[in-house]
Amino acid sequence: MKTDIEIAQSTQLLPISRIAEAVGLPEESVDLYGRYKAKVDHRLVARSAGRPDGKVILVTAISPTPAGEGKTTTSVGLADALHRLDKRVMLCLREPSLGPVFGVKGGAAGGGYAQVVPMEDINLHFTGDLHAIGAANNLLAAMIDNHIYQGNALGIDPRRVTWRRCMDMNDRQLRFLVDGLGGRTNGTPREDGFDITVASEIMAIFCLATDLADLKARLARIVVGSTYDGEPVTAGQLGAAGAMAALLKDAFDPNLVQTLEHTPALIHGGPFANIAHGCNSVIATKLSRKLADYVVTEAGFGADLGAEKFLDIKCRLSGIRPSAVVLVATLRALKHHGGCPRDALDQPSPALVRAGLPNLERHIENLRGFGLPVVVAINAFPTDTAEERAEVEALCARMGVPCAMSEVFAKGGAGGEALAKEVLAVMESQRETPELCFTYEDGLPLAGKIEAVCKKIYRAKAVNFAPAAAKALAEYERMGYGSCPVCIAKTQYSFSDNAKLLAAPENFTVEVREARLAAGAGFVVAICGAIMTMPGLPRRPAAENIDVDADGKIKGLF
Amino acid sequence: MKTDIEIAQSTQLLPISRIAEAVGLPEESVDLYGRYKAKVDHRLVARSAGRPDGKVILVTAISPTPAGEGKTTTSVGLADALHRLDKRVMLCLREPSLGPVFGVKGGAAGGGYAQVVPMEDINLHFTGDLHAIGAANNLLAAMIDNHIYQGNALGIDPRRVTWRRCMDMNDRQLRFLVDGLGGRTNGTPREDGFDITVASEIMAIFCLATDLADLKARLARIVVGSTYDGEPVTAGQLGAAGAMAALLKDAFDPNLVQTLEHTPALIHGGPFANIAHGCNSVIATKLSRKLADYVVTEAGFGADLGAEKFLDIKCRLSGIRPSAVVLVATLRALKHHGGCPRDALDQPSPALVRAGLPNLERHIENLRGFGLPVVVAINAFPTDTAEERAEVEALCARMGVPCAMSEVFAKGGAGGEALAKEVLAVMESQRETPELCFTYEDGLPLAGKIEAVCKKIYRAKAVNFAPAAAKALAEYERMGYGSCPVCIAKTQYSFSDNAKLLAAPENFTVEVREARLAAGAGFVVAICGAIMTMPGLPRRPAAENIDVDADGKIKGLF
Repeated sequence: MKTDIEIAQSTQLLPISRIAEAVGLPEESVDLYGRYKAKVDHRLVARSAGRPDGKVILVTAISPTPAGEGKTTTSVGLADALHRLDKRVMLCLREPSLGPVFGVKGGAAGGGYAQVVPMEDINLHFTGDLHAIGAANNLLAAMIDNHIYQGNALGIDPRRVTWRRCMDMNDRQLRFLVDGLGGRTNGTPREDGFDITVASEIMAIFCLATDLADLKARLARIVVGSTYDGEPVTAGQLGAAGAMAALLKDAFDPNLVQTLEHTPALIHGGPFANIAHGCNSVIATKLSRKLADYVVTEAGFGADLGAEKFLDIKCRLSGIRPSAVVLVATLRALKHHGGCPRDALDQPSPALVRAGLPNLERHIENLRGFGLPVVVAINAFPTDTAEERAEVEALCARMGVPCAMSEVFAKGGAGGEALAKEVLAVMESQRETPELCFTYEDGLPLAGKIEAVCKKIYRAKAVNFAPAAAKALAEYERMGYGSCPVCIAKTQYSFSDNAKLLAAPENFTVEVREARLAAGAGFVVAICGAIMTMPGLPRRPAAENIDVDADGKIKGLF
Repeated sequence: MKTDIEIAQSTQLLPISRIAEAVGLPEESVDLYGRYKAKVDHRLVARSAGRPDGKVILVTAISPTPAGEGKTTTSVGLADALHRLDKRVMLCLREPSLGPVFGVKGGAAGGGYAQVVPMEDINLHFTGDLHAIGAANNLLAAMIDNHIYQGNALGIDPRRVTWRRCMDMNDRQLRFLVDGLGGRTNGTPREDGFDITVASEIMAIFCLATDLADLKARLARIVVGSTYDGEPVTAGQLGAAGAMAALLKDAFDPNLVQTLEHTPALIHGGPFANIAHGCNSVIATKLSRKLADYVVTEAGFGADLGAEKFLDIKCRLSGIRPSAVVLVATLRALKHHGGCPRDALDQPSPALVRAGLPNLERHIENLRGFGLPVVVAINAFPTDTAEERAEVEALCARMGVPCAMSEVFAKGGAGGEALAKEVLAVMESQRETPELCFTYEDGLPLAGKIEAVCKKIYRAKAVNFAPAAAKALAEYERMGYGSCPVCIAKTQYSFSDNAKLLAAPENFTVEVREARLAAGAGFVVAICGAIMTMPGLPRRPAAENIDVDADGKIKGLF
């Protein structure tokens, strides 16, 4: 079989202007970036206020293995399948970070015959959005340290600057550092560090803002640290919000590309799914709803993290409401949850699949708890057997959940038609968009919201707040952030905060180690366990295989 | 009078596709980036090998004041004037760095009625080239530290890593730092630091490479540090060159924009003029020569730095030969060299202008020494008087050098016609492109080359090499880099290495403090005095005034 990049490079793309035309975009709202990428004026959302909204289909997954369960691939293939079924559909994805591209994971533009293209561009720089976000983040950092250096009129305590610098790179060397060395003229020595750009609060803000004015207002609200008196200092006080917004203004327009089957796709924003909310931008999702009858979008990691945040944060803050959820599972991951050793995942074992089903079952229950209809998608692998699949189908039948095999990796949209038909059937049976039942109400105190997620979604027996976390949460309540939603940062490999507890663990206690305020994004982060906000490169970085020939053709991306 | 951004925003731009068409670019060689920017396939240079080359006009300046003497503005206006005179002309400039935009200097896209547009885009991200260069630089840095972390098979001495990280930001806090803190899993503690992106060797390489294959070969040759045994370690040994080139492949295509008067401009690359060679990319200049009969380009800082490097480095390595040099002077700067206090520069004083003329005179002599015809351009200011101007004109008459007033800031191309006519006259009197007399021959040892520049161009009495510098130069000779040209990093405010010695100092000794090898760029840097490779923000950063409204209109850029 061909590699992803070979498939992508052997496909004839349509000029993006033709895709834009097919979507019905007015020419003056589209800025071309080369032949196959375009930015779409975000103001179309406000200008189309009177138009009806398309239905949103959320693609999420069971608790993943490190390889991932193919959410992006399934999303692409599902959109292609709907496109084949003559539906007006828009795919809505996150932008990949350069870090994983050069690290272990490779690209993030789908796979096989279900990809968004041009995959090389999407994986490398794309239209520059992540660089713009990094620049805005780092301008603020430079202005903080410059303020301290130039007399520190605001009285910022250098020991309490919480704003970190960022870079779109896997670079563990930058996690913890001391900067401002070299004497008086070179800054103020203090502990500092870099996060990967997608973990920056700017990315979260970017993905929740509804227009440029809202973006700027959110940037101004960012809390960067405290004064010596313990009072919060904001980006607005430093006069940074306008310049940061100026750096972000082009990036804020969603990016239009296409799938291998010429289905339109908006790829925009990509916050981490632990420290942030893990889904593409609100503005792109809203724009997609105006441009299509069906919007296929995905949320990061498993449904306990990505879908919970999509629903409790993105939907809560934006008013977006999904009509159906596709829950992606692989037989490999189910066997993994069933206790199968990593080197035996290719061996057929209906028993191990059955042993892993409680993970799938709990995710289904949770999603139904939100009031949403669920369709299970089995993302097919060549090593799958009918007996193994029958285990999953039996569970779904017992729970009354439609289930379909997705063969989009091997067959593109044609391999997703069965899934698409199930999803359409579920939505056609609805009289209107289902009422969304959030995990908690706005009025609940922050600690109560964290407990609600841990108990209702993760099924923890108890939640333990470390003293620093409890103190911080009380402080955020006092500062007026008590009505914010919470964003829980924990491992994606388990319902619990311990990556080793597979399937459907019970009787565990979640340890909330730390809390952080994302005042601009408008949520409070609860950190459970060790959360990496700056990944490292592996022993053999993917970068070593990436190359470009004299004509600019890229090799070695996957 | 309107501000630069008001003038720029009130001008009706032509679609860049129309500019490209007027230049005669084949449609398949042009990639649009929005309506008013495009990238042009660099392979056109090789494909047009049989076409004649246009004449290159280099714009340089006397030793500048901190405000700059208007080289970019004069370049834009001169190109506009040639355009008005119905000449086929291409303007060829450097890309601005974000650092100064947010710092004290503001934008770098010309000024008044002589600007390249869209100035907001050109000053903010543009087409992303600088971010791509930063990403390539930082990927290499991450791969170095990852190599050390993952077992250090090459035996890299962490104390002797010379490759620094970079960021396109004025951020003094990052000049000197210790990273890799936080214990074994977070890297290896070592001294490190960031340079501004334009000071990165990647930028110099980018601007000297002739095609993607050459770019990749140069990247592979970068020396990043030494082993414990003192042997050099290259980016090629780390397997980084392919991925770095992949990150740079789109950036390597020159950027097409227009002036306010619709003159075509290629804006591409922008290395520092101290630590690097300070002029736009070779590929853009070569492309311009194929697309126009006249190419107007500029080199950074004063002629002792920018022009010397343009000639001794860029022209030497690329085969490009200028046909004429425009030397920009302002009466303000001449008064400054004549000893005028900064707060009296607006006061007329022919005597102080006269006292400053030795600076202009020496630059003229130097440029003539290269074998090039010189035209002096007096960049007009409203406070200039005819008496002051007469002093300059008298010097030029004595030296037999044409001199013209440039009023392009106030009048655009019409204000540059007098200058354009003088430049055309000088070139028309040539039978062929003048033979270029370099300051030194390739075969001279490195120290001898440095002495040649210091004595012939700066007019130093002597050159003193600090022991570390002498040792490094001997080492580079041993390593086989003895035939490289040299790139001298010193203050731009004086012919000497002491910023306070104005006009035409004599009897000074240049202190070469340090030498650095830029093996990928193919030159050796001699550092004289304190050279800043990471600027800081001023007390009131320009960023505080920059803003964007709800429709994306930028304010406060200048």
